[in-house]
Amino acid sequence: MSVIIEFVIVPLGELSLSRYVAEVVKLLEKKGVKYQLTPMSTIIEVSSVSEGFKIIEEAHELMFKLGVKRVSTTIRIDDRRDKRRHMEDKIKSVLEKAQEG
Amino acid sequence: MSVIIEFVIVPLGELSLSRYVAEVVKLLEKKGVKYQLTPMSTIIEVSSVSEGFKIIEEAHELMFKLGVKRVSTTIRIDDRRDKRRHMEDKIKSVLEKAQEG
Amino acid sequence: MSVIIEFVIVPLGELSLSRYVAEVVKLLEKKGVKYQLTPMSTIIEVSSVSEGFKIIEEAHELMFKLGVKRVSTTIRIDDRRDKRRHMEDKIKSVLEKAQEG
Amino acid sequence: MSVIIEFVIVPLGELSLSRYVAEVVKLLEKKGVKYQLTPMSTIIEVSSVSEGFKIIEEAHELMFKLGVKRVSTTIRIDDRRDKRRHMEDKIKSVLEKAQEG
Repeated sequence: MSVIIEFVIVPLGELSLSRYVAEVVKLLEKKGVKYQLTPMSTIIEVSSVSEGFKIIEEAHELMFKLGVKRVSTTIRIDDRRDKRRHMEDKIKSVLEKAQEG
Repeated sequence: MSVIIEFVIVPLGELSLSRYVAEVVKLLEKKGVKYQLTPMSTIIEVSSVSEGFKIIEEAHELMFKLGVKRVSTTIRIDDRRDKRRHMEDKIKSVLEKAQEG
Repeated sequence: MSVIIEFVIVPLGELSLSRYVAEVVKLLEKKGVKYQLTPMSTIIEVSSVSEGFKIIEEAHELMFKLGVKRVSTTIRIDDRRDKRRHMEDKIKSVLEKAQEG
Repeated sequence: MSVIIEFVIVPLGELSLSRYVAEVVKLLEKKGVKYQLTPMSTIIEVSSVSEGFKIIEEAHELMFKLGVKRVSTTIRIDDRRDKRRHMEDKIKSVLEKAQEG
């Protein structure tokens, strides 16, 4: 099955966040994680909640390695087990219904 | 200036949400709001927090009109006033920095 | 009816947030809003979503008046219309069920 | 050090959530985790992010064992490493500053 997880890592004390998000993107690329960057978050598709937590924990720890003293990380998990679906399917399903009506 | 707001409207008591998100998309289209649909949320770009709240309140109320009894709505506002930027700029800035390093 | 809304206002660029939360608490006291401060957020009980939005917008704007340049505000609304309930009722209901089993 | 984590586990398809939150409370009690129940969430204080994730994953999985088909879990971590502080300290610090002004 696949789990879709959105996360936002905010290093407190910093005004510009793009440098930090860029480091997270590099981490996801290096690990070969399926992800989508949005203007407000990063969304990953993984095979289990624990796999997702492992990746996000690594990204969260990365901030401290970059010198940040306080990190606020928000995570939202969408875990549906009665049917298999991917990130793209969710958007497709909405757009199909929006066009019907 | 522009404010970027992410929101998620969850009708409790429902297993499939795409029908409801589709109604929100139709509302945004009708109102001519600049938006982006992601696998986990809807992101809008508006000129002020109050304009954003007005739109989200309308979308939230729509759920009750569709027969829902309980609605959980999550909103995240990114309001930066020292420089003007758009939804696309945020992603572009991250990707440029990710390629540098 | 009553709507319960949790919110968190984070001034980016600041390491310590308590000074800012204190200003929000003072605003809520002055306006006579029913609220509860938790270690992670502020929760208010209001009569409608629009009343809640008005209060949170005022608190959000307050940050810029205090000199902050970028504000990230997160809001979560729990709006149930099939029965009236208050903040205390939600906790009571959980604790009763936890003791039964 | 201690990490403070807020989480909300929402079983989709259910209108009343208190029964599910009660099961999470029982789990936290059984495991001896320091926690606070609020009208909108559960807040735990743990010694590391990975300890927190382990507990939340167990609570998230519990929902599926109770027959839920889709679970939406939201987590917010406040991880500050330049000084040690507890859940109570955060509220105390805000209230002190609110009384000063």
